[in-house]
Amino acid sequence: MSSLRVVALLFPGVTQLDLTGPLQVLAVSGQLELHLAWRTLDPVPTDAGFSIVPTVTLADAPPADILFIPGGQGTFALLDDDEVLQFVRRQAEGARWVTSVCTGSFLLGAAGLLQGLRATTHWASLPLLASLGAIPTSERVVREGRVITGAGVSSGIDFALTLLAELFGEQEAKRVQLQIEYDPQPPFDAGSPRRRDADPQLVEMMTALMHERRAGVVERAAARLS
Amino acid sequence: MSSLRVVALLFPGVTQLDLTGPLQVLAVSGQLELHLAWRTLDPVPTDAGFSIVPTVTLADAPPADILFIPGGQGTFALLDDDEVLQFVRRQAEGARWVTSVCTGSFLLGAAGLLQGLRATTHWASLPLLASLGAIPTSERVVREGRVITGAGVSSGIDFALTLLAELFGEQEAKRVQLQIEYDPQPPFDAGSPRRRDADPQLVEMMTALMHERRAGVVERAAARLS
Repeated sequence: MSSLRVVALLFPGVTQLDLTGPLQVLAVSGQLELHLAWRTLDPVPTDAGFSIVPTVTLADAPPADILFIPGGQGTFALLDDDEVLQFVRRQAEGARWVTSVCTGSFLLGAAGLLQGLRATTHWASLPLLASLGAIPTSERVVREGRVITGAGVSSGIDFALTLLAELFGEQEAKRVQLQIEYDPQPPFDAGSPRRRDADPQLVEMMTALMHERRAGVVERAAARLS
Repeated sequence: MSSLRVVALLFPGVTQLDLTGPLQVLAVSGQLELHLAWRTLDPVPTDAGFSIVPTVTLADAPPADILFIPGGQGTFALLDDDEVLQFVRRQAEGARWVTSVCTGSFLLGAAGLLQGLRATTHWASLPLLASLGAIPTSERVVREGRVITGAGVSSGIDFALTLLAELFGEQEAKRVQLQIEYDPQPPFDAGSPRRRDADPQLVEMMTALMHERRAGVVERAAARLS
Protein backbone atom coordinates (compact mmCIF):
# COMPACT_ATOMS: atom_id res chain seq x y z
CA MET A 1 0.00 0.00 0.00
CA SER A 2 1.41 3.41 -0.91
CA SER A 3 1.35 6.04 1.82
CA LEU A 4 -1.26 8.74 2.04
CA ARG A 5 -0.22 12.03 0.56
CA VAL A 6 -0.42 15.35 2.40
CA VAL A 7 -0.21 18.46 0.22
CA ALA A 8 0.28 21.64 2.28
CA LEU A 9 0.19 25.12 0.82
CA LEU A 10 3.23 27.27 1.60
CA PHE A 11 3.10 31.02 0.86
CA PRO A 12 4.87 34.28 1.74
CA GLY A 13 3.76 35.56 5.12
CA VAL A 14 2.54 32.19 6.38
CA THR A 15 2.47 32.01 10.18
CA GLN A 16 5.11 29.35 10.25
CA LEU A 17 3.88 27.45 13.32
CA ASP A 18 0.48 26.98 11.63
CA LEU A 19 2.39 24.84 9.16
CA THR A 20 5.34 23.45 11.11
CA GLY A 21 3.31 22.24 14.13
CA PRO A 22 1.12 19.93 12.05
CA LEU A 23 4.04 18.90 9.82
CA GLN A 24 5.98 17.69 12.86
CA VAL A 25 3.08 15.55 14.03
CA LEU A 26 2.47 14.17 10.54
CA ALA A 27 6.18 13.51 9.88
CA VAL A 28 6.70 11.63 13.14
CA SER A 29 3.95 9.21 12.17
CA GLY A 30 6.19 8.12 9.31
CA GLN A 31 3.19 6.91 7.33
CA LEU A 32 2.54 9.99 5.24
CA GLU A 33 4.13 11.49 2.17
CA LEU A 34 4.50 15.25 2.75
CA HIS A 35 4.56 17.93 0.05
CA LEU A 36 4.88 21.70 0.47
CA ALA A 37 3.54 23.47 -2.59
CA TRP A 38 4.04 27.00 -3.87
CA ARG A 39 4.35 28.78 -7.26
CA THR A 40 8.10 28.17 -7.57
CA LEU A 41 10.70 26.20 -5.65
CA ASP A 42 12.41 29.33 -4.32
CA PRO A 43 12.54 29.71 -0.53
CA VAL A 44 9.37 31.29 0.86
CA PRO A 45 9.64 33.90 3.64
CA THR A 46 7.53 33.11 6.70
CA ASP A 47 6.30 35.55 9.35
CA ALA A 48 9.12 34.55 11.70
CA GLY A 49 12.15 35.95 9.89
CA PHE A 50 13.27 32.80 8.10
CA SER A 51 12.37 30.95 4.90
CA ILE A 52 11.13 27.45 4.17
CA VAL A 53 11.79 25.71 0.86
CA PRO A 54 8.81 24.32 -1.09
CA THR A 55 9.15 20.73 -2.23
CA VAL A 56 6.89 21.03 -5.28
CA THR A 57 5.18 23.71 -7.39
CA LEU A 58 1.42 24.29 -7.40
CA ALA A 59 1.35 23.04 -10.98
CA ASP A 60 3.32 19.87 -10.28
CA ALA A 61 1.83 18.93 -6.91
CA PRO A 62 0.43 15.40 -6.92
CA PRO A 63 -3.23 14.88 -5.96
CA ALA A 64 -3.64 15.18 -2.20
CA ASP A 65 -5.30 12.66 0.05
CA ILE A 66 -5.11 15.36 2.70
CA LEU A 67 -5.12 19.01 1.61
CA PHE A 68 -3.80 21.34 4.31
CA ILE A 69 -3.91 25.15 4.31
CA PRO A 70 -2.08 27.05 7.07
CA GLY A 71 -2.84 30.70 7.82
CA GLY A 72 -1.14 33.99 8.52
CA GLN A 73 -1.33 37.54 7.23
CA GLY A 74 -0.20 36.18 3.83
CA THR A 75 -3.50 34.32 3.43
CA PHE A 76 -5.37 37.53 2.78
CA ALA A 77 -3.24 38.39 -0.25
CA LEU A 78 -4.40 35.12 -1.85
CA LEU A 79 -8.17 35.40 -1.52
CA ASP A 80 -8.44 36.80 -5.06
CA ASP A 81 -5.55 34.82 -6.54
CA ASP A 82 -6.91 32.63 -9.32
CA GLU A 83 -3.91 30.32 -9.52
CA VAL A 84 -4.10 29.59 -5.80
CA LEU A 85 -7.90 29.31 -5.66
CA GLN A 86 -7.88 26.91 -8.61
CA PHE A 87 -5.16 24.87 -6.92
CA VAL A 88 -7.22 24.67 -3.73
CA ARG A 89 -10.42 23.71 -5.56
CA ARG A 90 -8.69 21.13 -7.78
CA GLN A 91 -6.89 19.52 -4.84
CA ALA A 92 -9.99 19.58 -2.64
CA GLU A 93 -12.03 17.81 -5.30
CA GLY A 94 -10.21 14.51 -4.94
CA ALA A 95 -9.05 14.81 -1.32
CA ARG A 96 -10.31 12.59 1.47
CA TRP A 97 -9.66 15.39 3.95
CA VAL A 98 -9.74 19.15 3.43
CA THR A 99 -8.10 20.95 6.32
CA SER A 100 -6.80 24.26 7.61
CA VAL A 101 -5.30 25.91 10.67
CA CYS A 102 -5.74 29.52 11.77
CA THR A 103 -6.73 31.90 8.95
CA GLY A 104 -6.11 29.16 6.39
CA SER A 105 -9.86 28.60 6.65
CA PHE A 106 -10.41 31.92 4.83
CA LEU A 107 -8.76 30.43 1.78
CA LEU A 108 -10.97 27.34 1.99
CA GLY A 109 -13.91 29.72 2.32
CA ALA A 110 -12.85 31.85 -0.65
CA ALA A 111 -12.64 28.64 -2.69
CA GLY A 112 -16.28 27.97 -1.80
CA LEU A 113 -15.48 24.97 0.38
CA LEU A 114 -17.07 26.09 3.65
CA GLN A 115 -20.63 26.90 2.51
CA GLY A 116 -23.00 26.04 5.35
CA LEU A 117 -20.29 24.32 7.37
CA ARG A 118 -19.21 24.94 10.94
CA ALA A 119 -15.60 26.08 10.84
CA THR A 120 -13.03 27.87 12.95
CA THR A 121 -10.01 30.17 12.64
CA HIS A 122 -7.88 32.46 14.82
CA TRP A 123 -10.13 34.03 17.50
CA ALA A 124 -9.44 37.59 16.34
CA SER A 125 -10.76 36.88 12.84
CA LEU A 126 -13.56 34.46 13.71
CA PRO A 127 -16.52 36.83 13.15
CA LEU A 128 -15.28 37.55 9.59
CA LEU A 129 -15.54 33.90 8.56
CA ALA A 130 -19.34 34.15 8.28
CA SER A 131 -18.98 36.32 5.16
CA LEU A 132 -17.63 33.30 3.28
CA GLY A 133 -20.63 31.13 4.09
CA ALA A 134 -19.20 29.31 7.10
CA ILE A 135 -20.77 29.06 10.54
CA PRO A 136 -18.04 30.54 12.77
CA THR A 137 -17.45 28.11 15.62
CA SER A 138 -15.32 28.88 18.64
CA GLU A 139 -13.73 25.49 19.22
CA ARG A 140 -10.11 24.34 19.07
CA VAL A 141 -10.68 21.81 16.28
CA VAL A 142 -13.90 21.64 14.26
CA ARG A 143 -14.79 18.63 12.16
CA GLU A 144 -17.59 18.68 9.59
CA GLY A 145 -17.50 15.53 7.51
CA ARG A 146 -14.22 15.57 5.60
CA VAL A 147 -13.48 19.20 6.50
CA ILE A 148 -11.37 19.83 9.61
CA THR A 149 -10.44 23.38 10.63
CA GLY A 150 -8.20 24.34 13.54
CA ALA A 151 -8.21 27.57 15.55
CA GLY A 152 -5.21 29.94 15.85
CA VAL A 153 -1.55 29.02 15.30
CA SER A 154 -0.66 26.52 18.06
CA SER A 155 -3.98 24.67 17.62
CA GLY A 156 -2.34 22.98 14.65
CA ILE A 157 -0.77 20.42 16.97
CA ASP A 158 -4.17 19.43 18.40
CA PHE A 159 -5.60 19.45 14.87
CA ALA A 160 -2.90 17.16 13.50
CA LEU A 161 -3.20 14.65 16.35
CA THR A 162 -6.96 14.59 15.75
CA LEU A 163 -6.34 13.96 12.05
CA LEU A 164 -3.81 11.19 12.80
CA ALA A 165 -6.36 9.42 14.99
CA GLU A 166 -8.83 9.56 12.10
CA LEU A 167 -6.27 8.24 9.63
CA PHE A 168 -4.52 5.56 11.65
CA GLY A 169 -6.41 5.15 14.93
CA GLU A 170 -6.00 6.51 18.43
CA GLN A 171 -3.06 4.30 19.33
CA GLU A 172 -0.92 5.82 16.58
CA ALA A 173 -1.94 9.36 17.59
CA LYS A 174 -1.00 8.61 21.20
CA ARG A 175 2.36 7.19 20.10
CA VAL A 176 3.14 10.38 18.20
CA GLN A 177 1.95 12.58 21.07
CA LEU A 178 4.36 10.77 23.40
CA GLN A 179 7.17 11.00 20.86
CA ILE A 180 6.83 14.80 20.53
CA GLU A 181 6.34 15.01 24.32
CA TYR A 182 3.12 16.96 23.86
CA ASP A 183 2.28 17.34 27.51
CA PRO A 184 1.67 21.09 27.44
CA GLN A 185 2.23 23.15 30.56
CA PRO A 186 1.62 26.73 29.48
CA PRO A 187 3.18 29.06 32.04
CA PHE A 188 0.09 31.32 31.95
CA ASP A 189 -3.65 30.91 31.56
CA ALA A 190 -3.88 33.35 28.69
CA GLY A 191 -4.21 31.28 25.53
CA SER A 192 -7.70 32.23 24.43
CA PRO A 193 -10.10 35.13 24.99
CA ARG A 194 -12.01 32.89 27.42
CA ARG A 195 -9.02 32.39 29.71
CA ARG A 196 -8.52 34.16 33.02
CA ASP A 197 -5.27 35.94 32.16
CA ALA A 198 -6.31 37.04 28.66
CA ASP A 199 -6.55 40.84 28.56
CA PRO A 200 -10.11 41.79 27.47
CA GLN A 201 -8.94 45.14 26.10
CA LEU A 202 -6.34 43.41 23.96
CA VAL A 203 -8.99 40.96 22.71
CA GLU A 204 -11.26 43.83 21.73
CA MET A 205 -8.46 45.82 20.12
CA MET A 206 -7.11 42.86 18.11
CA THR A 207 -10.57 41.86 16.90
CA ALA A 208 -11.27 45.44 15.78
CA LEU A 209 -7.88 45.65 14.08
CA MET A 210 -8.40 42.40 12.18
CA HIS A 211 -11.83 43.63 11.11
CA GLU A 212 -10.38 46.89 9.90
CA ARG A 213 -7.54 45.19 8.02
CA ARG A 214 -9.37 42.21 6.60
CA ALA A 215 -13.11 42.83 6.26
CA GLY A 216 -12.73 44.51 2.86
CA VAL A 217 -10.75 41.73 1.24
CA VAL A 218 -13.02 39.08 2.74
CA GLU A 219 -16.13 40.91 1.46
CA ARG A 220 -14.65 41.05 -2.03
CA ALA A 221 -13.88 37.33 -1.91
CA ALA A 222 -17.47 36.68 -0.79
CA ALA A 223 -18.82 38.76 -3.70
CA ARG A 224 -16.91 36.60 -6.17
CA LEU A 225 -18.40 33.47 -4.63
CA SER A 226 -22.01 34.43 -5.27
CA MET B 1 17.76 50.68 22.70
CA SER B 2 18.69 48.01 20.18
CA SER B 3 16.73 44.75 20.38
CA LEU B 4 18.04 41.66 22.07
CA ARG B 5 19.60 39.15 19.73
CA VAL B 6 18.65 35.48 19.58
CA VAL B 7 21.11 33.19 17.81
CA ALA B 8 19.67 29.73 17.15
CA LEU B 9 21.68 26.82 15.79
CA LEU B 10 20.21 25.17 12.70
CA PHE B 11 21.64 21.82 11.54
CA PRO B 12 20.77 18.85 9.32
CA GLY B 13 18.39 16.49 11.06
CA VAL B 14 17.07 19.07 13.50
CA THR B 15 13.64 18.17 14.87
CA GLN B 16 12.04 21.16 13.25
CA LEU B 17 9.39 21.87 15.91
CA ASP B 18 12.14 22.14 18.56
CA LEU B 19 13.23 25.20 16.60
CA THR B 20 10.07 26.52 14.97
CA GLY B 21 7.90 26.44 18.13
CA PRO B 22 10.18 28.79 20.07
CA LEU B 23 10.89 30.93 16.99
CA GLN B 24 7.15 31.58 16.57
CA VAL B 25 6.82 32.73 20.17
CA LEU B 26 9.94 34.89 19.96
CA ALA B 27 8.97 36.37 16.58
CA VAL B 28 5.48 37.35 17.71
CA SER B 29 6.96 39.36 20.54
CA GLY B 30 8.48 41.62 17.89
CA GLN B 31 11.19 42.75 20.29
CA LEU B 32 13.92 40.31 19.33
CA GLU B 33 16.37 40.04 16.48
CA LEU B 34 16.40 36.41 15.29
CA HIS B 35 19.33 34.63 13.61
CA LEU B 36 19.54 31.03 12.40
CA ALA B 37 23.15 29.97 12.12
CA TRP B 38 24.78 27.12 10.24
CA ARG B 39 28.06 26.43 8.38
CA THR B 40 26.79 27.80 5.06
CA LEU B 41 23.67 29.61 3.89
CA ASP B 42 22.40 26.62 1.91
CA PRO B 43 18.99 25.23 2.92
CA VAL B 44 19.25 22.75 5.79
CA PRO B 45 17.13 19.58 5.74
CA THR B 46 15.04 19.06 8.87
CA ASP B 47 13.58 15.80 10.16
CA ALA B 48 10.18 16.62 8.67
CA GLY B 49 10.92 16.38 4.96
CA PHE B 50 11.50 20.05 4.24
CA SER B 51 14.40 22.51 4.50
CA ILE B 52 14.86 25.79 6.36
CA VAL B 53 17.26 28.46 5.16
CA PRO B 54 19.92 29.74 7.60
CA THR B 55 20.14 33.52 7.94
CA VAL B 56 23.83 33.64 8.89
CA THR B 57 26.90 31.39 9.00
CA LEU B 58 28.46 30.15 12.22
CA ALA B 59 31.49 32.29 11.47
CA ASP B 60 29.50 35.46 10.80
CA ALA B 61 26.85 35.12 13.51
CA PRO B 62 26.75 38.19 15.75
CA PRO B 63 27.19 37.72 19.51
CA ALA B 64 24.00 36.30 21.04
CA ASP B 65 22.13 37.75 23.97
CA ILE B 66 20.18 34.50 23.90
CA LEU B 67 21.85 31.36 22.56
CA PHE B 68 19.35 28.67 21.60
CA ILE B 69 20.10 25.06 20.63
CA PRO B 70 17.27 22.84 19.35
CA GLY B 71 17.57 19.05 19.26
CA GLY B 72 16.92 16.08 17.06
CA GLN B 73 18.82 13.06 15.79
CA GLY B 74 21.20 15.50 14.05
CA THR B 75 22.47 16.74 17.42
CA PHE B 76 24.40 13.54 18.00
CA ALA B 77 26.47 13.99 14.85
CA LEU B 78 27.73 17.29 16.28
CA LEU B 79 28.95 16.23 19.71
CA ASP B 80 32.52 15.84 18.41
CA ASP B 81 32.38 18.65 15.86
CA ASP B 82 34.99 21.24 16.81
CA GLU B 83 33.58 24.04 14.66
CA VAL B 84 30.15 23.66 16.26
CA LEU B 85 31.44 23.16 19.81
CA GLN B 86 33.65 26.23 19.51
CA PHE B 87 30.68 28.21 18.15
CA VAL B 88 28.55 27.12 21.12
CA ARG B 89 31.27 27.93 23.67
CA ARG B 90 32.11 31.30 22.10
CA GLN B 91 28.46 32.34 21.89
CA ALA B 92 27.67 31.08 25.39
CA GLU B 93 30.53 33.10 26.87
CA GLY B 94 28.89 36.46 26.24
CA ALA B 95 25.23 35.40 26.30
CA ARG B 96 22.76 36.48 28.97
CA TRP B 97 20.80 33.27 28.42
CA VAL B 98 22.02 29.86 27.29
CA THR B 99 19.12 27.66 26.24
CA SER B 100 18.07 24.43 24.58
CA VAL B 101 15.04 22.31 23.76
CA CYS B 102 14.90 18.53 23.52
CA THR B 103 18.28 16.88 22.83
CA GLY B 104 19.83 20.28 22.18
CA SER B 105 20.94 20.02 25.82
CA PHE B 106 23.43 17.31 24.80
CA LEU B 107 25.27 19.87 22.71
CA LEU B 108 25.34 22.30 25.64
CA GLY B 109 26.63 19.40 27.74
CA ALA B 110 29.30 18.43 25.21
CA ALA B 111 30.45 22.06 25.25
CA GLY B 112 30.92 21.76 29.02
CA LEU B 113 28.08 24.14 29.85
CA LEU B 114 25.95 21.87 32.04
CA GLN B 115 28.50 20.73 34.67
CA GLY B 116 26.70 20.29 37.98
CA LEU B 117 23.49 21.87 36.66
CA ARG B 118 19.97 20.50 36.69
CA ALA B 119 18.89 20.15 33.07
CA THR B 120 16.34 18.37 30.93
CA THR B 121 15.88 16.86 27.47
CA HIS B 122 13.52 14.50 25.62
CA TRP B 123 12.26 11.84 28.09
CA ALA B 124 13.72 8.94 26.09
CA SER B 125 17.25 10.34 26.34
CA LEU B 126 17.08 11.85 29.84
CA PRO B 127 19.19 9.22 31.66
CA LEU B 128 22.06 9.76 29.18
CA LEU B 129 22.40 13.43 30.10
CA ALA B 130 24.17 12.55 33.37
CA SER B 131 27.27 11.46 31.41
CA LEU B 132 27.86 15.06 30.41
CA GLY B 133 27.89 16.32 33.99
CA ALA B 134 24.27 17.47 34.20
CA ILE B 135 21.72 16.46 36.81
CA PRO B 136 18.92 14.95 34.66
CA THR B 137 15.66 16.56 35.74
CA SER B 138 12.28 15.40 34.58
CA GLU B 139 10.51 18.74 34.29
CA ARG B 140 9.01 20.55 31.30
CA VAL B 141 11.27 23.61 31.60
CA VAL B 142 14.31 23.71 33.88
CA ARG B 143 15.98 26.97 34.85
CA GLU B 144 19.38 27.09 36.51
CA GLY B 145 20.65 30.65 36.63
CA ARG B 146 21.12 31.77 33.04
CA VAL B 147 20.70 28.25 31.65
CA ILE B 148 17.19 27.18 30.58
CA THR B 149 16.58 23.74 29.10
CA GLY B 150 13.27 22.44 27.76
CA ALA B 151 12.07 18.84 27.53
CA GLY B 152 11.10 17.12 24.26
CA VAL B 153 10.00 18.82 21.02
CA SER B 154 6.70 20.57 21.81
CA SER B 155 8.01 21.81 25.18
CA GLY B 156 9.74 24.53 23.18
CA ILE B 157 6.56 26.61 23.25
CA ASP B 158 6.41 26.48 27.06
CA PHE B 159 10.15 27.18 27.20
CA ALA B 160 9.90 30.23 24.94
CA LEU B 161 6.98 31.74 26.85
CA THR B 162 8.96 31.26 30.07
CA LEU B 163 11.94 33.00 28.46
CA LEU B 164 9.77 35.87 27.19
CA ALA B 165 8.43 36.44 30.70
CA GLU B 166 12.03 36.66 31.96
CA LEU B 167 13.03 39.06 29.21
CA PHE B 168 10.02 41.37 29.04
CA GLY B 169 7.71 40.49 31.92
CA GLU B 170 4.64 38.31 32.32
CA GLN B 171 2.28 40.68 30.57
CA GLU B 172 4.21 40.41 27.32
CA ALA B 173 4.37 36.62 27.57
CA LYS B 174 0.60 36.50 28.13
CA ARG B 175 0.03 38.77 25.14
CA VAL B 176 2.05 36.45 22.91
CA GLN B 177 0.34 33.36 24.32
CA LEU B 178 -3.04 34.86 23.40
CA GLN B 179 -1.79 35.87 19.97
CA ILE B 180 -0.65 32.33 19.13
CA GLU B 181 -3.84 30.98 20.74
CA TYR B 182 -1.82 28.68 22.96
CA ASP B 183 -4.72 27.14 24.82
CA PRO B 184 -3.70 23.52 24.31
CA GLN B 185 -6.34 20.81 24.24
CA PRO B 186 -4.46 17.61 23.45
CA PRO B 187 -6.93 15.02 22.22
CA PHE B 188 -5.25 12.34 24.37
CA ASP B 189 -3.51 12.13 27.73
CA ALA B 190 -0.38 10.57 26.31
CA GLY B 191 2.22 13.35 26.15
CA SER B 192 4.74 12.07 28.68
CA PRO B 193 5.70 8.73 30.20
CA ARG B 194 3.84 9.82 33.36
CA ARG B 195 0.52 10.21 31.54
CA ARG B 196 -2.32 7.72 31.70
CA ASP B 197 -2.48 6.90 27.98
CA ALA B 198 1.29 6.63 27.47
CA ASP B 199 2.18 3.04 26.59
CA PRO B 200 4.73 1.76 29.20
CA GLN B 201 6.14 -0.78 26.75
CA LEU B 202 6.75 1.93 24.19
CA VAL B 203 8.44 4.08 26.84
CA GLU B 204 10.75 1.23 27.77
CA MET B 205 11.50 0.34 24.16
CA MET B 206 12.23 3.93 23.11
CA THR B 207 14.47 4.56 26.13
CA ALA B 208 16.42 1.36 25.39
CA LEU B 209 16.68 2.28 21.70
CA MET B 210 17.99 5.76 22.45
CA HIS B 211 20.51 4.27 24.87
CA GLU B 212 21.68 1.81 22.26
CA ARG B 213 21.95 4.46 19.55
CA ARG B 214 23.37 7.31 21.55
CA ALA B 215 25.23 6.11 24.65
CA GLY B 216 28.48 5.55 22.73
CA VAL B 217 28.65 9.00 21.19
CA VAL B 218 27.67 10.64 24.48
CA GLU B 219 30.37 8.70 26.35
CA ARG B 220 32.99 9.80 23.84
CA ALA B 221 31.86 13.43 24.21
CA ALA B 222 32.10 13.04 27.99
CA ALA B 223 35.64 11.63 27.69
CA ARG B 224 36.74 14.71 25.74
CA LEU B 225 35.33 16.97 28.47
CA SER B 226 37.48 15.55 31.25
